[in-house]
Amino acid sequence: MTTRDDNKRAVVLLSGGLDSATVLAIAAKQKQACFALSFNYGQKHCAELDAAKRIATAADVIEHRIFPLDLSAFGGSALTDPSIPIPEQPSHGIPLTYVPARNTIFLAVAVGWAEVIGARDIYIGVNAIDYSGYPDCRPEFIDAFTATANLGTKAGVAGDFFRIHTPLIEWTKAEIIYAGQELGVDYSLTVSCYAADDQGRACSRCDACRLRAKGFIDAGVEDPTRYQPV
Amino acid sequence: MTTRDDNKRAVVLLSGGLDSATVLAIAAKQKQACFALSFNYGQKHCAELDAAKRIATAADVIEHRIFPLDLSAFGGSALTDPSIPIPEQPSHGIPLTYVPARNTIFLAVAVGWAEVIGARDIYIGVNAIDYSGYPDCRPEFIDAFTATANLGTKAGVAGDFFRIHTPLIEWTKAEIIYAGQELGVDYSLTVSCYAADDQGRACSRCDACRLRAKGFIDAGVEDPTRYQPV
Repeated sequence: MTTRDDNKRAVVLLSGGLDSATVLAIAAKQKQACFALSFNYGQKHCAELDAAKRIATAADVIEHRIFPLDLSAFGGSALTDPSIPIPEQPSHGIPLTYVPARNTIFLAVAVGWAEVIGARDIYIGVNAIDYSGYPDCRPEFIDAFTATANLGTKAGVAGDFFRIHTPLIEWTKAEIIYAGQELGVDYSLTVSCYAADDQGRACSRCDACRLRAKGFIDAGVEDPTRYQPV
Repeated sequence: MTTRDDNKRAVVLLSGGLDSATVLAIAAKQKQACFALSFNYGQKHCAELDAAKRIATAADVIEHRIFPLDLSAFGGSALTDPSIPIPEQPSHGIPLTYVPARNTIFLAVAVGWAEVIGARDIYIGVNAIDYSGYPDCRPEFIDAFTATANLGTKAGVAGDFFRIHTPLIEWTKAEIIYAGQELGVDYSLTVSCYAADDQGRACSRCDACRLRAKGFIDAGVEDPTRYQPV
């Protein structure tokens, strides 16, 4: 087990999926004292948050917060709006699962918490390679957000800068899985599926399922995903 | 009454204070179809939100949302943390009433709602002159946030840009009050005080009360603020 430095605090965004579980392991490996942050944002299933709890416990984080922030009040995404079904075909361009301003909102809340607890490092598992076309997963977005956070906070203005870490941003899904396996991530705890059932079993048909399954094959790692009966 | 253009939609951040009430009147004057957005963010008193409701009703907005977003879960501010009293003396530098990353969080949520309802104009009553030293009220912060929003959203990436309007940013409190009076803003509906009582009566001692009272004097406008009995 890596010894952590309790004075080196980080907020790690933890969705409960494969990517964020890997990021948490990377932050721990870098001896960060990890504060995990998940959002109950009105996503259609709670399997993701159940997974986040399991991952946070397995990683022995200092604290895990599930912040209520109901974006389903706005709708406009297949992930939060009951009137928009989860797509089963790969999309061109930005897909229906895009949630308006999601990472801007999540990172803003993360900065708020980080400033209070004295953390200046924030980790997020965005990925610009094997991704689904989300604009808020790109390096240029992360750079702009970092500048905003440092102009809009007491810490940032004092030169005590926030850093947004995106260790996966240029990795393929296979590279993420391979790295996570080396770090001992138990991917059976994670849920990537957009339409998982109450037991956390995956649909096998959505974009997230397809990307995940291909990642395990490409990485040559056995896929521990539990699927719904056909 | 100004005729509004229902196709020209704007989200207006409405705290219930003097500044945001004035901004709402300015947006309406510019024929925006106004969607008002307030936050129940764990502030110590609800007088502010009661005021926001009255102002939104008086302005006949299309819709007024009060979004729950409990920043008191993090604490770290005299406005949200019961263990930090509201200061009664003017502060040097950034005061205890600073709420970590507040405007970044509020603007991010505003962009999320705006994208769903097809609004690209967002109005916020930040002020960099007669203000309290908050870093997230400065033009450089607003510019950085705007860039972030346009890099992190489907609309922005498609060139359908968000614009953050800050009509008060270079005005003195007296100029704000004078302009609002010309637009017919009823300042008796507004609550600026950080420590208002349940009836919305102001304390007269906090920073916000001092700035407000001086603003009415400087503007030569009668001050309709109701104060708590001494």
